[in-house]
This record gives sequence, C-alpha cells and structure tokens, in this order.
Amino acid sequence: MKRIERHTCWDGSQSVWRHASTTLGCDMNFAIFVPAHEDGERLPVIYWLSGLTANEQNFITKAGAQRYAAEHKVILVAPDTSPRGDGVANDPAYDLGQGAGFYLNATQPPWSAHFRMQDYVAMELPDLIEAHFPTNDRRSIMGHSMGGHGALVTALRNPGRYLAVSAFAPIVAPSQVPWGEKAFTAYLGANRSAWAEWDATALLASASERLPILIDQGDEDEYLDTQLRPWLFTKEAEHFGHPVRLRRHPGYDHSYYFVASFIDEHIAHHARALRA
Amino acid sequence: MKRIERHTCWDGSQSVWRHASTTLGCDMNFAIFVPAHEDGERLPVIYWLSGLTANEQNFITKAGAQRYAAEHKVILVAPDTSPRGDGVANDPAYDLGQGAGFYLNATQPPWSAHFRMQDYVAMELPDLIEAHFPTNDRRSIMGHSMGGHGALVTALRNPGRYLAVSAFAPIVAPSQVPWGEKAFTAYLGANRSAWAEWDATALLASASERLPILIDQGDEDEYLDTQLRPWLFTKEAEHFGHPVRLRRHPGYDHSYYFVASFIDEHIAHHARALRA
Repeated sequence: MKRIERHTCWDGSQSVWRHASTTLGCDMNFAIFVPAHEDGERLPVIYWLSGLTANEQNFITKAGAQRYAAEHKVILVAPDTSPRGDGVANDPAYDLGQGAGFYLNATQPPWSAHFRMQDYVAMELPDLIEAHFPTNDRRSIMGHSMGGHGALVTALRNPGRYLAVSAFAPIVAPSQVPWGEKAFTAYLGANRSAWAEWDATALLASASERLPILIDQGDEDEYLDTQLRPWLFTKEAEHFGHPVRLRRHPGYDHSYYFVASFIDEHIAHHARALRA
Repeated sequence: MKRIERHTCWDGSQSVWRHASTTLGCDMNFAIFVPAHEDGERLPVIYWLSGLTANEQNFITKAGAQRYAAEHKVILVAPDTSPRGDGVANDPAYDLGQGAGFYLNATQPPWSAHFRMQDYVAMELPDLIEAHFPTNDRRSIMGHSMGGHGALVTALRNPGRYLAVSAFAPIVAPSQVPWGEKAFTAYLGANRSAWAEWDATALLASASERLPILIDQGDEDEYLDTQLRPWLFTKEAEHFGHPVRLRRHPGYDHSYYFVASFIDEHIAHHARALRA
C-alpha cells in the first residue's frame, strides 16, 4: 500500500492511497480523511460511495465534508467506483464498465473477472482500513447516485456491519430504471430473478435490520423521474417498518453543489449512530 | 451575456456566465454565487482571483465558500485567470500566457493585444456585475497564489474601490521571485522600472489607503521559500503602517484543501468591512 497524495485539511489529514486489490485483481486508489485526534484514540469510519464516472477524487475535492468529519471526529473513506486498468473489461459508455461498477459482484463475462465491487467495499477495503488506520469497529455508509444505490444495498446486504446509512439522489430501484437495467443485464445477465439481491427496494422485504436511513433528493434533479424515483424505496421501507426519512429540496440538481449543501446533516446523521 | 451553468447551492444560486469582453477582446467566463436574499435587497461583492492554470471553476467547486457567503449574505464573483481562445497569444508553459494573466495590463507584444486583466477585473467585470446582479456599491477582493498577488495589487492600485483584501499563499513580491520575473519580463519588458506598479510589496510605499489585509500561508507550501516569501510583504506593510495580519499554518500546503480550511475566516474578514 502506497500513499500517493497527502494534504492537511481542517487540521486533519486527507490522503490518497494505492494498493493491489486481491478481490478485484487490479490496483485501486482510495481516499481517506483522518481528523485530528489524540494519540491512541480510535475513531468510527463513514464509507462514501461515488456515482457514475467518478473516482476517489470527486468527493474529497468537491463535497467539503472534511470540516464536518473533523467536528464529529469521524474518519471518511472514499473508494473508486470500479476496478480499473488495461487488463480490466470496459465499455465506451459512461454508465457501464470502468467508472460504473454498481457496487455488485458481476456473474457474467467479461465482467465477472474483475467486477466484484461489493466484496471490495464491504470486506476487503474495511479490513485494509481497519488494519492501517486508527479506527474502532463502528462503521456506516453513504453515497451519491449510483453510490447511493451502493450504500443502501451494501447496508441492507450486510446486517451488523453498519450503524447508519444515507444517500444523496440514490438509484433506489435499479431493476426498474434504465441505468440499472442496462448495468444489471450486463453484469448479472438477462434473467431478472438474479437482480433482486442487488436492488435496495427489493431487498427491503427480507432485510433483518432496521438502520436509520436518510435520503436527500433535489427536486430539479435531471434524473429524478427517469433513473432515481426515491418514492419507490420509501414506500416499501415504510411498509416494512424501516425508519426512513426522505427530504425533497426545491431547486437542487444532481451535482456536488447539492451534496455540499447537505453533507453536514448527513455526517451528523451518521455521527449520532456511530457515537451512540 | 449568456448563462452557461446554474446550480442551487446553500439555498443560493451558483452560476457561470459567458460574455464578450471589450477590454480583453475575447469571450470570458465568470462564476457568481448569489445567496438567498429578500426581493429588492442589494448585497456587497467579494471578488476572488484564482492562481496559475485555474479558470472560473476551481474556486466554486473546491473552496466550499458558498456556505459562508450565504451566512454573511455576500455575493462571490470568480473570473477566469486570463484572456482565452485561438486568437489570443499563448505559451506552452503553465506559468505564462493563457491561465497565467497575472492580473496586469501587458505592454509587450504579443501579450499587449489581449492581456489587460487588471482593467478587466478592476473595471469591466465590476461594471458588468453591478449592472446585472443585486449588488450594492461595496466591494472587496481576495485570491490564491497568483490570484493573491492580483488581489493585493488590485486593492493597492485602486484606492476607494475595495473595503478589504485578503490572500491565500500569495505571490507578494513578483519582482523578486521566478514566477514573477518570468511573467513580468514577458508582459512588461526587461526594464524592471516598469515592474514596481504591479508588485504588491513595491506598491506599499506609495499606497494612499489603509485596508485591513489578511494573509494565510501554509508552512508546508512547496512554493513558500522560492515563489511566495510573504514576509517580504508584511515587513514593508508594517513599516508603512498597513494593518496586515499574516498567519502561518503548520502542515498546510498550496492546494485548495488549504483554502477550504480557512475560507470561512476570510469571508468573515471581508464581511466585517463590507457590512460595517
């Protein structure tokens, strides 16, 4: 594991690391912000999953989250959105292949060789973080758009691993929208019966845990009605007794200007659970 | 003037506009954040000048300034760093030509045809902003690196136009450092007698106004000893009775992670003068 970038930010340390991922079979970058803390103090970790086309840089340069992580003394970890490299399958479209891993384990060739982002973000990466940084055993997860899908699915699939979950403008029902249908057909095959275990809305019926879920959604989001449709999720979540809060914000779009405007409240939402 | 981008951010409006600049003889982009405000209310304006290689995007995507502008109800304006386009002189180096206008009026060919950034940022742009946005007549100016130089020089050259000035890691004495010597030789000629009127440290002796000056500087800034040397400025400023405050911050580098960590205090510094 090699540090390739480091900056002091809000008196903490924002760094980027590269490591050889055994799960993905390629080198991967991740970003981590560690707030100022006492010697020997161990902190909880919030994982951030980014959206289509992003890598580990978008969140750390644009969301302004470090201030709030420093205030609440939580570590932030932001991985890349897919395996990368010349030896990794790809597609010219922005919404498939590299930059578009959808945080699942692909079963279909050529994707199945490397695209195991669920095992990476839920298992290999936390193991790596907890071995090398001053963490305790308390984790939570959040994300944006495709990464909001990733956060919800990862929390619902791994009971006991996360204490809170939240999302900005998430894809909540990938089986029912074009981005998800395209990616799931490629990664999981045309048989839709395999899709439900990677669809947050479909997972709610069988989820054994009740985590506090916060979803923020801009009303001027260009993808709201076609790709996101958060009401599909909240209706199911309420039906099955999940404590979900969906806030719709007039005027806000799908960009990091939206994320930056509410990231303080997301980090507070996580910190309440992580420090309870 | 045409709006090419708009996002709601912290309940205000972050937009980017393109207009034909008569001063520069080319199309120019500028970014503007207008906080939420009452109908008919008019707000003061802080101008932000960016550093080498930047355009109007860097500050608005990376500094996280909108939150504080919203809190203090000030407008933020961020222009590009030079004239641009196929018809504009350029140089392959990152520190000369397009992206490196140094906020001066060039006198030497080929630069003198378009490179009149001082007239643009101090005159044409404020006239445009004040004609089209809900401004009052109160202005201040700040910047980063080359833009810190620009902010200091523009404030010192235009008494009565600005109520406060501040800078992050500014080039304070361009006549004495490699970036400035290279740019000034190209834009102003080899005769150093013409350089003093574009050098913040040299301008202090004859400056007629005493504005509150705040300078923040990271101690781990890779350009500190070679290009920045803020003590050259503060020594002269104190000698001539300018109220200057230089803060050195252990661990911080030259990046926007540094700007983002202290932009709240800069906007508060400006707001005190703008709302006094």
